[in-house]
Amino acid sequence: MKVSQRVKEVPYSAIRKLTPYADAAKKSGKKIYHLNIGEPDTRTPKEFFEAVQDFNQDRVGYAPSKGLLELREATSKYYKDRAIAYDAEDEIIITAGASEALVFALIAVTDLGDNVLTCNPFYSNYYTIFRQIGIKPQTFDTKVEDGYKLPDYETILNSVNEDTKAVLLSNPSNPTGAVYTEEEIRRVARVAIEKDLFIIADEVYREFVYDNKEFMSFAEIEGIEDRLILLDSISKRFGACGARIGSIASKNKDLMTEIVKLATGRLAAPTLEQIGATKLYDVQDSYFKEINEEYQRRRDCVYEELQKIDGVKTYAPKGAFYVMPELPVEDAEDFAKWMLTDFDLDGETVMVAPGFGFYHDSNVGKSQIRLAFVLNCEDLKKAINLLKIGLDEYKKINS
Amino acid sequence: MKVSQRVKEVPYSAIRKLTPYADAAKKSGKKIYHLNIGEPDTRTPKEFFEAVQDFNQDRVGYAPSKGLLELREATSKYYKDRAIAYDAEDEIIITAGASEALVFALIAVTDLGDNVLTCNPFYSNYYTIFRQIGIKPQTFDTKVEDGYKLPDYETILNSVNEDTKAVLLSNPSNPTGAVYTEEEIRRVARVAIEKDLFIIADEVYREFVYDNKEFMSFAEIEGIEDRLILLDSISKRFGACGARIGSIASKNKDLMTEIVKLATGRLAAPTLEQIGATKLYDVQDSYFKEINEEYQRRRDCVYEELQKIDGVKTYAPKGAFYVMPELPVEDAEDFAKWMLTDFDLDGETVMVAPGFGFYHDSNVGKSQIRLAFVLNCEDLKKAINLLKIGLDEYKKINS
Repeated sequence: MKVSQRVKEVPYSAIRKLTPYADAAKKSGKKIYHLNIGEPDTRTPKEFFEAVQDFNQDRVGYAPSKGLLELREATSKYYKDRAIAYDAEDEIIITAGASEALVFALIAVTDLGDNVLTCNPFYSNYYTIFRQIGIKPQTFDTKVEDGYKLPDYETILNSVNEDTKAVLLSNPSNPTGAVYTEEEIRRVARVAIEKDLFIIADEVYREFVYDNKEFMSFAEIEGIEDRLILLDSISKRFGACGARIGSIASKNKDLMTEIVKLATGRLAAPTLEQIGATKLYDVQDSYFKEINEEYQRRRDCVYEELQKIDGVKTYAPKGAFYVMPELPVEDAEDFAKWMLTDFDLDGETVMVAPGFGFYHDSNVGKSQIRLAFVLNCEDLKKAINLLKIGLDEYKKINS
Repeated sequence: MKVSQRVKEVPYSAIRKLTPYADAAKKSGKKIYHLNIGEPDTRTPKEFFEAVQDFNQDRVGYAPSKGLLELREATSKYYKDRAIAYDAEDEIIITAGASEALVFALIAVTDLGDNVLTCNPFYSNYYTIFRQIGIKPQTFDTKVEDGYKLPDYETILNSVNEDTKAVLLSNPSNPTGAVYTEEEIRRVARVAIEKDLFIIADEVYREFVYDNKEFMSFAEIEGIEDRLILLDSISKRFGACGARIGSIASKNKDLMTEIVKLATGRLAAPTLEQIGATKLYDVQDSYFKEINEEYQRRRDCVYEELQKIDGVKTYAPKGAFYVMPELPVEDAEDFAKWMLTDFDLDGETVMVAPGFGFYHDSNVGKSQIRLAFVLNCEDLKKAINLLKIGLDEYKKINS
């Protein structure tokens, strides 16, 4: 029995690729600091659990395909507080995480063989989804040297070809932690208008922006309302990754009508988790502030510690909880694997995501890794120190 | 901004297509008996809610991409009790409902432009999913006259062409309520072996089989282990449609390795609902028995009442909770719409799903409707009586 060519071409997740080696290391008694996966350690606000506990129907029935109205209203209000206007009734649809929101958006704007413009490096699961639905990425490069800023207008414009139907950006960025300035956002919008592209804005890390910078959403730019599709999720915002609740928002009525058909085809998003998610939006703004301050401390820790390692190219990420430094090794995947199989310091080691899987048609990522700073500062310091000592040892062996 | 051709070709759900008319009817004060959608009214066992209430972590973290081990074990044990052997460790993956399980199965066995063999009529959401991932249905016909039995070996065999990669069957069948005999199952298996096809068996209605008949799963047939993909769901079995918990099972290791990549690409199925689902498998066999008896009563009611209507072609469905009769009207969709917009008896009417949307390349369904018998007998009798009176009136107007 032969499996399909397309499924064979789906890459194994860059983030979880080394999991078998990590499992073996754990079995042998090693303690692993996980910097490979972007799951925050922050608690889910109690409002979520209270709402679920309060559920008093005797049946877990289907939610509406578009999502519970209460959750769409809470999402709409959250946006409104941030100068973003999406109507709960017909401009927001609840999805099974931002992953499903992206699938819906891409199916609605691309046909087989089309491509979607994004930047190198990009979130590796995008590629998995592209491959599943028969489209390709088209990329322009961003660079570690300037903290992965967007390139100039012409570079982005010239990356578009006749099969490009949309530009997709994660902002704040997974995997780089870049936060695009208003000028960068407007640059992308100009390209989208010039080339008549949809803009798919993945803003799930919106609340994670540091140094007192304001976050500028694509939804705040006038003149692109009809081409903008906003993807979102409660996963990172409320430390509720396991709830799998996301959303898709757009003012393009034709588009939303089509997406309702896709939503109907999978019936609904999970009911209880939607009920919990609705109440999450009752948390005070101080909740976001506290989380943000904690992550800024972590960002500072990681940046400070990475700078202590000889030969590492790094930068201070402006948002999200990722940094994508370049290591002084030829093959960062081999190094990352070696850290799990051959290295430990007093029984401890660290797991990182190799950078290669975040790039398309490029070898730049081969020396890079993605670190998720989702541990407390003390653990982060230990973890980066293990990386430093591991690198020294690895370089000695491989020189 | 142009949406994609493929999304335009996704049909609006046959089951929910008339919802706007139903909403309008409700607004005008009509009471509607819903026979259009297959959501059981049975309560979810308390074990589900207890497990969710007992969740005592302070964070809703990601479940493993393959699903919670406990739930895979519970599913494995459920199968084992029914003479079906799937190992929890690497032969079962938890999905967001059977819908996601089908998406994974189809992506793993088909490439763009391939087709999947199924019978006319088939579950309409299959078509939505086919269209999304770039494949087509290839169909053979089954008929209302014999309760939608499968056709002979040659007919099925000759429906296969060179682009056919799998045969997909819902058994017990949505939308017809047919339950295939061991001989019919073996007939399909022979075709699959002869033409080297995967078999995708959607057995979500397994517990709904009437007249003391034994249900024969494809998983009980020897010699097709490598080509069988079993789709399942807790939705109907435990009256938990809104939990969106399903599964995919196969003994084909290569296939399951590929499907893990797809599962990883969407991170995980919802955590709390998996925790609840796990405990559902603790219910006693008497739970299934009671539910089954209740649905058999409902089946009897519907069958008896339908026989009272002049000119209706019907039969006693053997399983699931659907029946797909043929009405003495040319356009059952027009009739179904009319029942919502123009008909009522003492302020009451009934909503059914037009049959056309369950067929591919066929006009046979134009006079048919799908009824879901998910109400109690008393309400069912009222609903079918409304259908009878409505039909009389509609025929008078249209003659």
